Order: sequence, then structure tokens, then C-alpha cells
Amino acid sequence: MKRLFNTIDEWKIIQDKIEFEENRLAESIMSIGNGYMGMRGNYEEYYSKDSHRGSYIGGVWYPDKTRVGWWKNGYPNYFGKVPNSVNFIGIDVYINGKILDLGKAEVKDFYRELDMKNGTLTRKFIANIDGYEIEAKVTRFLSIVAKELGVIKYEIKSLNFDGEIMFCPYLDSNVKNEDSNYDETFWVNVSTDSKNNYGNVVAKTKDNPFNTEVFTIASVMNIRFNKETKLNTYSNREYYSDNTLIFDIKESETVAIEKYIAITTTRDYEENKLVEKAEYILNKEINKGYETVLQEQIKAWNKRWETSDIKIDGDDLAQQGIRYNLFQLFSTYYGDDSRLNIGPKGFTGEKYGGATYWDTEAYCLPVYLGTTSKEVSKNLLLYRYNQLEKAKENAQKLGLEGALYPMVTFNGEECHNEWEITFEEIHRNGSIIYAIYNYTNYTGDYEYIKEYGIDVIVEVARFWASRVHLNKRKGLYMIHGVTGPNEYDNNVNNNWYTNYLAKWCLEYAAENIFKLEKECIESVNRNNVSKEEVKMWLNIADKMYLPYDEELDIIVQHDDFLDKEFIKVNDLPKNNLPLNQNWSWDKILRSCFIKQADVLQGIYYFNDKFTFKEKKRNFEFYESYTVHESSLSPSIYSIIACEIDNLDKAYELYSRTARLDLDNYNNDTEDGLHITSMSGAWLSIIQGFAGMRTNNQTLSFNPKLPNKWNSYSFNINYRENKLKIEVNKDGINITNLEGNDIEVNVYDKKYIVKNNEYIAYRYVALS
Amino acid sequence: MKRLFNTIDEWKIIQDKIEFEENRLAESIMSIGNGYMGMRGNYEEYYSKDSHRGSYIGGVWYPDKTRVGWWKNGYPNYFGKVPNSVNFIGIDVYINGKILDLGKAEVKDFYRELDMKNGTLTRKFIANIDGYEIEAKVTRFLSIVAKELGVIKYEIKSLNFDGEIMFCPYLDSNVKNEDSNYDETFWVNVSTDSKNNYGNVVAKTKDNPFNTEVFTIASVMNIRFNKETKLNTYSNREYYSDNTLIFDIKESETVAIEKYIAITTTRDYEENKLVEKAEYILNKEINKGYETVLQEQIKAWNKRWETSDIKIDGDDLAQQGIRYNLFQLFSTYYGDDSRLNIGPKGFTGEKYGGATYWDTEAYCLPVYLGTTSKEVSKNLLLYRYNQLEKAKENAQKLGLEGALYPMVTFNGEECHNEWEITFEEIHRNGSIIYAIYNYTNYTGDYEYIKEYGIDVIVEVARFWASRVHLNKRKGLYMIHGVTGPNEYDNNVNNNWYTNYLAKWCLEYAAENIFKLEKECIESVNRNNVSKEEVKMWLNIADKMYLPYDEELDIIVQHDDFLDKEFIKVNDLPKNNLPLNQNWSWDKILRSCFIKQADVLQGIYYFNDKFTFKEKKRNFEFYESYTVHESSLSPSIYSIIACEIDNLDKAYELYSRTARLDLDNYNNDTEDGLHITSMSGAWLSIIQGFAGMRTNNQTLSFNPKLPNKWNSYSFNINYRENKLKIEVNKDGINITNLEGNDIEVNVYDKKYIVKNNEYIAYRYVALS
Repeated sequence: MKRLFNTIDEWKIIQDKIEFEENRLAESIMSIGNGYMGMRGNYEEYYSKDSHRGSYIGGVWYPDKTRVGWWKNGYPNYFGKVPNSVNFIGIDVYINGKILDLGKAEVKDFYRELDMKNGTLTRKFIANIDGYEIEAKVTRFLSIVAKELGVIKYEIKSLNFDGEIMFCPYLDSNVKNEDSNYDETFWVNVSTDSKNNYGNVVAKTKDNPFNTEVFTIASVMNIRFNKETKLNTYSNREYYSDNTLIFDIKESETVAIEKYIAITTTRDYEENKLVEKAEYILNKEINKGYETVLQEQIKAWNKRWETSDIKIDGDDLAQQGIRYNLFQLFSTYYGDDSRLNIGPKGFTGEKYGGATYWDTEAYCLPVYLGTTSKEVSKNLLLYRYNQLEKAKENAQKLGLEGALYPMVTFNGEECHNEWEITFEEIHRNGSIIYAIYNYTNYTGDYEYIKEYGIDVIVEVARFWASRVHLNKRKGLYMIHGVTGPNEYDNNVNNNWYTNYLAKWCLEYAAENIFKLEKECIESVNRNNVSKEEVKMWLNIADKMYLPYDEELDIIVQHDDFLDKEFIKVNDLPKNNLPLNQNWSWDKILRSCFIKQADVLQGIYYFNDKFTFKEKKRNFEFYESYTVHESSLSPSIYSIIACEIDNLDKAYELYSRTARLDLDNYNNDTEDGLHITSMSGAWLSIIQGFAGMRTNNQTLSFNPKLPNKWNSYSFNINYRENKLKIEVNKDGINITNLEGNDIEVNVYDKKYIVKNNEYIAYRYVALS
Repeated sequence: MKRLFNTIDEWKIIQDKIEFEENRLAESIMSIGNGYMGMRGNYEEYYSKDSHRGSYIGGVWYPDKTRVGWWKNGYPNYFGKVPNSVNFIGIDVYINGKILDLGKAEVKDFYRELDMKNGTLTRKFIANIDGYEIEAKVTRFLSIVAKELGVIKYEIKSLNFDGEIMFCPYLDSNVKNEDSNYDETFWVNVSTDSKNNYGNVVAKTKDNPFNTEVFTIASVMNIRFNKETKLNTYSNREYYSDNTLIFDIKESETVAIEKYIAITTTRDYEENKLVEKAEYILNKEINKGYETVLQEQIKAWNKRWETSDIKIDGDDLAQQGIRYNLFQLFSTYYGDDSRLNIGPKGFTGEKYGGATYWDTEAYCLPVYLGTTSKEVSKNLLLYRYNQLEKAKENAQKLGLEGALYPMVTFNGEECHNEWEITFEEIHRNGSIIYAIYNYTNYTGDYEYIKEYGIDVIVEVARFWASRVHLNKRKGLYMIHGVTGPNEYDNNVNNNWYTNYLAKWCLEYAAENIFKLEKECIESVNRNNVSKEEVKMWLNIADKMYLPYDEELDIIVQHDDFLDKEFIKVNDLPKNNLPLNQNWSWDKILRSCFIKQADVLQGIYYFNDKFTFKEKKRNFEFYESYTVHESSLSPSIYSIIACEIDNLDKAYELYSRTARLDLDNYNNDTEDGLHITSMSGAWLSIIQGFAGMRTNNQTLSFNPKLPNKWNSYSFNINYRENKLKIEVNKDGINITNLEGNDIEVNVYDKKYIVKNNEYIAYRYVALS
């Protein structure tokens, strides 16, 4: 844990001193995005010290040639990467001819705030350059009203001199990825143009030998300012366009420029229309005026918070943490485009590459279900539906039937190339189906299954049916050669979670086919499902081997797992942790230590299938060997800890997930934020402390209050209702803010909450 | 199988037509070497069609930066490669000003022979260039008398014209590896010089960031010729030196030049002495005259054959095959330098990189024990002894005690980087010890253990003791997370072969310590071995888990192996083979198919520990699932097949190993020869058909004769004796060619063979 920003505000991330050593970490934390594009918290002006400049455009990617030591049959040819894209925030500033560089200037009163409530990033500082002192204020936001729009207002006040201020706003597409496999740039110049107060740069991703889409991005800037210029000129060259504006300034006077940028891409428009479209959007927004555009942004963010905010009383760190998580998650994805998904680093870095992991279905979907409209979640499902054909090709490549969704992807093709992950971490396929179940169960939208879902459900069932094998001696179906969610065990046999999920997928497929045979035979026929096939699925499910140890009375993570040497995490010398930085890979693999929820991921998914005692036994066994070296781990454990009334453990685990990046728990936030893990804090509160479940199409709560907290409350969308849930030391209040009367279970008792009324449940005894 | 050369000669490899499509394959097969250096069968003159030009110098290597997709803790920083080195054979030829290029000339009567008996490569052809017809004869050899020396004689006869012949002999260090990770060259020019009939080129391997040795190579050439030149001049530039010699030629006249080359390196001399040393060697040899130098070469090769030849009557293909194997093996290594070892491609290609694999100990050592002096084998052992410190560092890197020898190495540091191999294929460590046992047992040289061997034995025992873990529930020691010799199963638990070998290593260490405590306490003290440590070793050995299946009554390859789906290789559709080209890696891994001897490797090593029935049951079970997709596989199976009297199977498997490269069985000989597998044919005959064993320091034979053969015979060194063994349809004759009377077991009966006498054992019944 390493907390960079110690001033805690419930709605703001506040940096009150300039960072040099930890600048990359600060840049990650101060990232902003609007689902369409985003960037790290870089300075607008030139900065000479260490920095990782990065701007990223959703859905734009480049297939970097695969790099491996030893090729394995089945590896993909390329690794999809998010290319660092046009630097459109750049504004170089000169004070009396000297460049403003916070890496060298004498700086005081540095202050930066990320205003999560309003969706803006503001920076203030006083800088002294050769005796000339200025006060600067810079405001930046990416509009969630007009997604293509970025706005920067850069104000400079002279504190002690009369002289000149020069602004050089620019666009620059000559940018590079820090992680390119062959040190190459991914961009080719198409055209550039500049005029007074105007510039544009059009660049496209390089041609590639893999026949994947090439993307062209146009960036257009317009400059506005508050007083007459002394000089106003421009230039452009390949990849680059800039304006130069010189203003006279008097002591105590402020000069300000506004830079409006619109970014359009061939994802939405023809290449030859890109500049025109961007100009159209720009003009429309600029005509509203800066204040209006800003107020629209604030209003739109406030509206998001109305349905999604979680209030925590008595724990400022937790309060700030959960809002930060939601802010960054929504900045990455808010469901506007079914071609997009939630990359592990969002728009905050370029590590890992790829856009879509199983994180989306396993961890993020519930957040969107609970906090946004149904369509947002549906778009996440459609993303996979639209990639079904690629998933079928992927299975075929491995000699299997049906569909295998990739571990990492942009366009549906696999982008990852470690055999133990790419070929073996196939449980991901189950989460695609679980998400359909989850969505349908939560929203009641069974039409989705008829129209789209069943196609995916059937092809995944076919995958599992071809991926199992019958162990003839034991008369059981087995799944060999897999990697479970715990990636600290590779190429294992009969990972319980994988087998259980596969069994459930097969049963769920059969169940849906039976239902559709009555309700929508077309969706059965469309998929050529025969009675024999369904029978085979059920036969495999029925005889699926699920490792269990009678002596310890626990689920066994996989074959031979209990043959390991067992040491509890607490008994490990502290300097061994994190294992992934201190132990060789083979030592990690043969150890008993667990990276993230594996058996417990299954218990989490299917929480209504296990008794309190089963949960308790398995939690206690597995938790003691879990190192939580995945950012996705603590939230799931926290939820189960709540279920088994271990509230202290639940709170401890919650803390790890809620401030993972703000407190840099994993010591790698400088590379970018853990976007998909941002969902973990929400899950821990809503499904953990509040115990919200939607099993069997029934909304239920089983709330608990961490000792440290006075109360917490949140709003939730459930089907046609909006509910407000408040949990305090006395009990729980549920208010039906919107929608018809609704049945809610609290501590297993049924209540009807009428529209605009509330129920209050008082604790008998605090746990 | 694809046989390129159909004219079979028992002592020669004969190519009687020019190859274009398969030129690389021909180049591999026509490789020559002298243990110090070697090269592929490239033409001396310019050649415009596809070719892989490669010359390699033993012990010279370059650390190429490791390339992986995903870094794992513990990976080495570099991958050691054999750099393609100075092209010293080059002689461009011009006929009346037109370049001689067999890729374009009209060629007839092309003939090339690799004379294995005499160690020479000769080529003849008639070429017509624009109507001018010449006959050429080119002879090349690398001296095994003066290791630094290469000799080429290039003769041209005019068949139909009076005119000019121009020879341009040159040296060229500006060469590139086909497999460099980053497409770079590995050489830097140091100096070049030329004079009349003389040239030299000095180049060094590039500096590297890994602090490994940089090698400088000097190549010096002297040119001799048989008539007056019309022009005799020279030139040189960076990396390059050449002479130009023009001769008048009359119809029917022959002009010939001799190119003598000496190669010296900083492995042997100071950089500033390299040219001088090379010149000294050159002068000495040249003064002898071409004929003498050639005759010395022939005599030296003939001497090698005296002790090592195997004669097979009734099977020309087999006869040629076994000689080719021995010829290429001896061309790669003949024990002159304990810093060298036997690379998998020898001097015939650059694929795989690295010089030393466990192949040396497991497959090659017995050949050298049987055919060369004791010192040759001892040098192979000393190679590992000298790298003990590096092996200790390697174990430490993985968090383990003792010494772990690398999978692939030049200088003792690990060069390979697949986690499942590098970190897990640790059985290699056992073969290092087995080789010590094998050497000592064969030679009776126990002094080696006292002086050197015990240090290695102790450190490897310490490695195993730290690599096992106690399974408390079962009270047994286990070894998790390994890859056995069958690399088609990765990261398995309790690979029987590994566990068995580890147990044996621990027992063998204890046994030697007990012996040394009496005979040489210094070697015990030197290694700080305590009584408690030895007790611990024996305790682990005693409680080592060895998977066995009672129902099938067979050894189990590893935990869960029998849970797989079982399909016999014969029942697989033929187009699935080879699996490594047709199946995805995960499908291979979870299949029952075995790449190479695994359980059977153990039975082979410890053949006196298993009964006939045990061998038969395990052979029959495992052989039916073995695809032999390693060149090292068939020989071991062939030997066990002999032991269980399955002579047809033994012969079938022998055939796969004996002509592996000549018949291009694995369809990859174009990349270079399978040098370490060359030992397989020898093993199959000597240990297989002849059933030679040296268990318990007793020489024994259990000979069988394949149906197709009339007889076979071979010479063998055993301790102080030289024996000749002849096996024919009547029985076996053993002649004691040299040394005292010796006790030999034949079919388990004891005989004394007196000096210069022979025993003849007549079959009672042929098996």
C-alpha cells in the first residue's frame, strides 16, 4: 500500500503537491475518459521529467505481431493492442519567451483535483520562470454529452510582470506505444491542415498482414481566447498541426484560451468525411459557449450519480474509494456502443493490450445491471453475441466443436499467447453464459435469449460437450488440461470450478431448449439442436466429475491439489509477498497459494446452491491459502465472508479492493488503473454487506454493517423499479423511488414495498 | 520418410544429380566437421539458388536477448546461439569472364560423395557456360590432425576451349544467422589484410549486455596453384579479404588451386596472436604438401573406424546408416576439448541454439565409452563438473538448494525459456548423475568420483532433497510440477521417471558418501556432508512416491495419467500425424500420446531392476501410445523391444533411428542434422540387438540377430580391453583383440576370453 494523495475528499481526488518521482502514478490516478476516448492525467504543456503520455480511443486497435520464444500450434498470429493515439491535449506555453515546464520551473501552490461528481479535471499552480511569476488554472474534461468532444481551458495570470504569454496548442499523431513488440509506431500520416485558430491531423493505423481493420482518426481543434492576440499564426507538417498565439499581459491580468477538440474515426464515418464531421460537432458545441458545455457535462455526470451513488457514513476513505471506482468504470464504459467493452486498463494505460476479458461478464456486468439502464448491460451481451462466429472459428482451430470465446480480444479473435492461458483457461466460456443467465434473471428480459442468447448458449454447450472426455474406468466425464481462475496453477485436471460451470452450462442449455421448444421453436431450429444432442448434454452433466474430499469435507480445487504442501499465507515470511515478484514461476505453480477466487468463484456464482456450512468450510480452507495477487480477488472473498458472518474479514478484504489504485495496493498503478476491478468495491458493498441477491427472479437483501461504518446507502435499478437502500446501526430502510409495488426479501422474510413508500427492518441482534 | 540419395554405398554418401528444390536437405546431409569447426555442404563457388550457407566454430556463441510474450520470474536474460561464422570455403570461379553458378549453368554428370571412411567431401561436375564446357573436381576436408585446418582443392579442366579461368578465393565474416531474434548480425570487424596468395579476416562477436565472453576469430588463407598466373592480385575491405588469380587454359588442360585455411580463436589464444598462430599452423601444414596432409587425414579417420566400426551383412541401408551416424557424431565431438559438448545440430545448422542438452549424458556418452578412449568420455563429464557453480546459481534462482543443471547451455547458464521446460524438465539433473555412474561402472575409474564426481553428486542430491515435498496425509515424498522426457505432458505431478531417478540419485549419493568416508574422507569434507544430511537423503528416497497401477499392473507415467482418454497410435487417422504439426498444443497435452521414452527411459537406465515381465507389460502398454516425435525416442524403445524378444518391433524402431537424417524421417533435416540422435543407432545395435550391458561392473551380451541381417560385428573398448563381437545366424564370437583375459557373460553364462583368443557361443534356438 502506498497512498499518494493524503487529502481525502468524498467527491474529489486531490493532489496538493507536485509529484516527480511518482508522476506516472499520479497520471494514472488522474485519468479521465468518456467511454469513447480517454487519457492519462498528463499535463497540457511541455514537461521534461518522467511521464507516460497516453491518449486512447475506444475500439481502435492495432494487431502487433505475436512474439514468443517457442511457437505452439494454435497460437494467434497477432496480439491486439490499444495504440497510444493522437495527443490532442497539448498546449505549450511560453512566458516572455521561456517555456513553461513544471519539471524545471519553481512551482508553488500546486493543486489538482479530479472532480468525480462533475467529471472535470482542474489544475492550479504558481510558477516562477526566471523571475516572472504566473498563476495558472487549467480545466479539462471529455464530454459525456457529445462523446467526440474534449475541452480545455488554460488560464494564466501574471503575478508580477507586464510581458508576453505565448500559447501553442497542437495536435500530434506521431506517438508511440511503450509496449510495442518491435519498437515500431502504429500510425501513418494521412493529412494535416491548419488555419488561424484551427488545426486538424488525420492519421491511420499502419497496414497489417493479418487483414484486420485499419482505423483512421481525425482530430480537429478550434481555439478561442479572451483578448486580442499580438500574433496569431499556425503551421503544420506530417502528423502535426499547431497554432501560435501571443498575448500581451499586464500584471494581475489573466489571459485564457479554450481548446476544443473533436475526434472522429472510421469506426463511425467514412474516412473522407471525418474532418467534416468533427468540424460539425465542434461548431455545434462551441456555439453553446464554454459555460454551457461545462454545465451540460456537470448535469450529465450528476444524473449518473443519481442512480448509482453509494454513500458511506463514518469512513471517508471508503466513501472516496467507492466513488472513484464507479467514476473510472463509467468513464471507461457506459454502454453507448455495443462494439466496445471494458479493457483492463480502460483509457489509462496500454499494458496487457486487448479490450475484453472475462472480467466484463464476471465482475462488471452486475454493476451495470444495478446502476444503469437495461440497454447498457444488453450491449455488453450483444458484444459477445456479435463475436460468436469468431468464437466458433477459435474452437475449430483447437480441434473442438461449438464456440470458445477468446481470453483477450478486440474483434472476437484471440489475442493472447501463453498456452496455459489461451488454450486452457477455458472457464471464461462459462462466464459468457453465466452473464446471459444473470442478465435475464435480473432484468426478466427473456426475449434476449430467444433472439440472441440461445445461439451463444448452444454453441458453448457444444464446446463443453466436445472438450470433456469420458474416463471409462470411472464412468465419469472429466476435463483435463485447464487453468482455472487461479492462474497460479496451470494445466491442471478437473478444476472444480471449470467442471461445475461446464456442467451448469450444459444443464442451462438443455433447460432453455426445453423452454424454447414450447415458446419459440424457431430459436431451437435455427441452431439445429436435436433431442439426442440435448440428451447427450444432460448425460455429460449428470456424470460430470466434481472433485470432493470426504475427509476434509471440502470441494477440491482440482485433481492432486490436496497433495501439495500446505502453508498458510499468514505463516509465510512477509518478504515472500507478493509471490509473483519474489518466487520463480515453478515455485508458485507447485505451491498451495491461490491468486484469486477459484472454488470460491463458483460458490459466489451459484451462491444459492451451497449451505452456510459448506460456504464456511470452503471459505476458511481456501482463504487461508489465498494471496489475492489479482485485483479481482478480494471482492469475491469479501462477499462470501459476509455470507458466513465473518464481517471483520469481509471489511479487510473490501478495503483491499475499494482503494486498490488510490492506495496503489499492487504497486503497479503507474501502468494504468485496474478498471475491471473497479467493480469489486461495488460488488462487495451491494452483494457483500447489503447481501443483495436476485436468485430465482426474487430481489433479496441480507444486510450487514461493518463496525467502522455508521451507515451506508445506495440506489439500485431492479427491473422497472428504482430503489433506495439504507443500512444503519438500527436496520435497513428500503424506499421504492420509482416503479410499481415490489416484493423484496429481507433476511428471508417477504415484504411488499409500495411505490414511494419504504419499509424499515430493525435488527434483532447485530452480527 | 523422404530419401534424397538413392545410390547406396556402405562407406559413402553419394549424390548423383544436382538438387535445387532439396538443396538445403542435401547441404545438411553433406555437412563435415572436425570437432573444432564444421560446415554445411555448401558449394565453394557462388550459387544463386536457395541455399543455407553456414559455418560454425565449436564453443563460439552469442547471447541473443530472450524473446518471450509474457515474462515469468526466473527466465534467463539471453538465449545462447551458435553464430554462423566466417565463410572460409568461398572460391568464386569465372570461365572466360562469366561466373560459374550451378544455379544457372548447364550442368551434367554432377556427382558428390561424402567419404566417411576417409573424411573427405568431393564434388565433380561438367558445366557449360555460354558454350565453354569445363569439368570440375572439388575436394574439401577439415583436418582431424590439425584441428584449425581446412583444405580445398579446386580443379578445372577445359573440355572444349582455350581461354581464361579466374579463381577468387575469399574469406567473409559478414554473415548472419537465420534465427537471430532481432534480425541482427552477431559480428564486428576487427581487421582484414591481403597479400598475393594470402588473406586474413579477424572479426569478433558483438559486445553484449550480459557480460558473457566475446569471441574473436581469425581466419587466414594461403593459396597454392599448379601453373603460372596471368594475373595475381588481392583486395580487402571490412569483414572481407580476397585474392584474384587468372590462368590461361588450353583445351584438355587442368588448372587447380589449393586453398588452405586456418581458423584460430580467443578460446585458445590472445586476440593479438590469432593471425600469427593461424599462419604458423598453416605454414606447417602447407609445407607437408597437399598429398601428405590428405593422407594424414585419411589415416586418422581410418584409425577412428578401427575401434568403432559396425559391420552389417545383408542390409546395405542399415550399414550405410550406422556409419553415417558415427561419422557425423565423431565430426561433432571426439573429446579433444572438455569445454565443448555435442550440440543437437552440431556444425550442421543453427536451429535450437545452445550446445548442450541432456542428450549428451543420456544418449551420446555410451557411444563414446564404447568406441573411444576413456579420456573422451571423461571430458564430457568434466564439462558438467566445470559448470557446477553455475548450476548452483541456477538452483538458487529458482529458490532451491544444490545444483540444477540447465536444459540448454553453453557456459553453464540456462539458455532456454519455456517455463514448462526450463523450470520443470528437471529430470535432466538425474542424467548428469547417471552419466557419472555409467562412466565409473564402464571404465572402473573410481578416482573420477573422488576427485570430481562426488561434488556434482552431492549438489544434485541436495537439489532433489529441496525439490521434493512431504505429502503429510500420505506420508510420502512427492515431486510436483515437472515435465518428464515426454514433453507432450507438461507440468505434471509425480512423473514416475523423475521420481525414480531422484530417488536413485539420493541413494547413489549416500552410497558414494559411505564409500568415500572410508576411502577418501577429504572428498566428503570438501562438500560438508553430514551424517544427518545423508540420513535425510535416504529417508526421502525410502518414502519417495512411485505411481503404480495395481489393476493394470504397470508403472504410471504420472498422477492422473490413467484418467486420460486412451486411443492407440495405430487407431489414429494417419493424417493426424505428426501430432506436433496437426494438433493444437492443448490437444496434444491432454492426449495420451507420448513423444518419447518416459517410463521406458527409466526402465532403460535401470534395466537390471526390472523383470522380463515388468518390461514386457510396460513396453506393450506405453509403446502403443508413443508417436516417437522426438528423434531420441525409437532407439530406447528398440532396446527394450530386444529385451522382451520383440525383434520385429525392435528392427522397425531401429530403422527409424538409423537413417533418420539420410531418409529425412522427421521432414526437418534441411535445418541441420539430428546430431545427438546419431547415437541412437549405435545404442540400438550394441545395447539392443547385441544386448551389451555393463551392470555391476560386468560385461555381458545377450545377442539377437534381426531376421533381415546375415550378421553384424563391431569392436568395443571396455576398460583395458579391445574386443571384437561378431553375431551371425549361428551365434556369437567374441575376440579379445587387446588387453588381459576378460570375463564376459553371454546369455547369463560366464566366459573368460583370453588375450588374442575368441569364444564362440552357438545359439540353441533363435529367438
